[in-house]
Amino acid sequence: MSTEAPCHAHIVGAGLIGSSIGIGLCSAGWSVSLEDPDERTAKLARSIGAANVPGTEEPAIVIVAAPPAVAPEVVRDALRRWPSAVVTDVASVKAPIANAIDEADASRYVGSHPMAGREISGAIAAQGDLFKARPWVVCAGAAEESAVSLVTDVARALQSDVVSMEAKAHDIAVARVSHAPQVVASAVAAALGSLEADDVALAGQGLRDVTRIAASDPAMWADIARLNSAALVRTLDHIIADLEDVRESDDIGEAVTDLIARGRLEVQRIPGKHGGPTRDWTPVTVVVPDEPGQLLTLLQDAAAAGVNVEDITIEHSPRQPVGLTTLHVLPENAGALRQALIDHNWEIASS
Amino acid sequence: MSTEAPCHAHIVGAGLIGSSIGIGLCSAGWSVSLEDPDERTAKLARSIGAANVPGTEEPAIVIVAAPPAVAPEVVRDALRRWPSAVVTDVASVKAPIANAIDEADASRYVGSHPMAGREISGAIAAQGDLFKARPWVVCAGAAEESAVSLVTDVARALQSDVVSMEAKAHDIAVARVSHAPQVVASAVAAALGSLEADDVALAGQGLRDVTRIAASDPAMWADIARLNSAALVRTLDHIIADLEDVRESDDIGEAVTDLIARGRLEVQRIPGKHGGPTRDWTPVTVVVPDEPGQLLTLLQDAAAAGVNVEDITIEHSPRQPVGLTTLHVLPENAGALRQALIDHNWEIASS
Repeated sequence: MSTEAPCHAHIVGAGLIGSSIGIGLCSAGWSVSLEDPDERTAKLARSIGAANVPGTEEPAIVIVAAPPAVAPEVVRDALRRWPSAVVTDVASVKAPIANAIDEADASRYVGSHPMAGREISGAIAAQGDLFKARPWVVCAGAAEESAVSLVTDVARALQSDVVSMEAKAHDIAVARVSHAPQVVASAVAAALGSLEADDVALAGQGLRDVTRIAASDPAMWADIARLNSAALVRTLDHIIADLEDVRESDDIGEAVTDLIARGRLEVQRIPGKHGGPTRDWTPVTVVVPDEPGQLLTLLQDAAAAGVNVEDITIEHSPRQPVGLTTLHVLPENAGALRQALIDHNWEIASS
Repeated sequence: MSTEAPCHAHIVGAGLIGSSIGIGLCSAGWSVSLEDPDERTAKLARSIGAANVPGTEEPAIVIVAAPPAVAPEVVRDALRRWPSAVVTDVASVKAPIANAIDEADASRYVGSHPMAGREISGAIAAQGDLFKARPWVVCAGAAEESAVSLVTDVARALQSDVVSMEAKAHDIAVARVSHAPQVVASAVAAALGSLEADDVALAGQGLRDVTRIAASDPAMWADIARLNSAALVRTLDHIIADLEDVRESDDIGEAVTDLIARGRLEVQRIPGKHGGPTRDWTPVTVVVPDEPGQLLTLLQDAAAAGVNVEDITIEHSPRQPVGLTTLHVLPENAGALRQALIDHNWEIASS
């Protein structure tokens, strides 16, 4: 943790991310000014508390929250306009921006990627705690230690979880964990296009999970795909090659089994709680009538049995007035939970 | 609903599915006998209540619960062994079995596909209510009405949700909603193979959703892929073509945006609650300390505000002792819920 006192931050771009940073830094006691190419946007942001001082002084740090496509140019411009300020940006692709910086300014530029919630879109109001408990990637590049420290102070003031990475490694990683999964989920969803509505109704929780992010807003992805096209294409190549191996295999059964076995090993590396590997929780599935208050009663009965519920998944049945609710608990608690729920007249669907 | 009284069913194959059907039918008052090529398996199934009569009489219905690869042969054999019984099977691919039936027997054969829970595997004990509130597809084919009615009685005795389909349409539909999504989810997971553990840790809820089914047991998929290879390959062709269009596009941003827009339309057709289109619930995300009882308290506070929670998703933070819990509620309730939670000192992460 840095010992620096909060100081003056200037935000360029008063959209959702810029305004949310402004609100959060103001709450944390920083001096914040902001600007936006659209003066009405800037005015709105100021009126909701995203800034608290005029932008007349030289700021200690400039935070560029411009759309990804223009971010490289706006960052270069900021480095020229404020020749002694540290400059960071929040675009979700980092190498193309780092590569656009003049060598003379590289000691003052630090890349940031605050990984805010997936359900956020421009229409939703800014919130000072948008970044709380989310990863905030910091790409130091050629920056001085004091510059990196100031950016880290911003992330910590917003209660983010700071992660240090090289810009290129970041871009490769987000192509694999975010950009390609988005494209592929959309392709799986698009392949439903030939089905009748009754056939789509056979979908289970598996399809719902795979395609949840396919409901994303298309517009925001154009810039991301363009800026990270090299890593995205490489990841898609990898995925397409695996799918083609299945399609062209002499024994499709063996090819599918091999691919699933490989994927399963990787899934185990996706962190669950507390940064460890995904916990091996035991699912206890309960038939829950689709009536108000049933979920609460279920959790109360679990709590009365002294069992903590680690995770919940709810599968809504398409044609029946019940849903299947799965409580994920520590393996050593599953037996006690199952018995307690049976004692409370819950129907256990499968164990 | 048929008015037939429960009658004698004989089950061929005493694995998880066969035993679960047996337990369920016994509970529903049917006479149930069973057999398995492995006499120890059959004995175990009888000892857990999957049968209640010896298999000496001619059954009214024979339910083949053999592995998919041998199902066509076992069904043909059953039609020969019991020349006046109705025969059904539970394999998750239907046309190859229907096509294997002799024309003379077609009036007595009905295909079934009980779509039991995704988390079930052979190691888990059979349960009589495994099929409760799950779809049970019935493919009548060339069967007589009385035969179809008897199979429907079985499905209803197990409290399944009966869905009538043509065998070929079923196979095409499950390739799109289940088999191809499984293969693609595994390919997305396999593409994580080149990343360091720290990079995989950037994964958000989106990747966790897309790859959840990639944790499936590889072995069971070989038979399914072989039997449904034509429909699976056609679906993979569709998905690969969409991914290649993105990869080879002159403007990857536009291609990605187009694909996401197409996928988004299809996702809206996946049914949510009550068979309607996915409800447009409003998410309210709360920062929840990772301590026992917090989730229960959260739901109690929501209930006290008179708000019913339609769905819950929990995002465990990899490095911090808090998780983000999203309550999905009717849009008209979101404001009241948010205010009530703030009043109870919950931190709303984003709205």
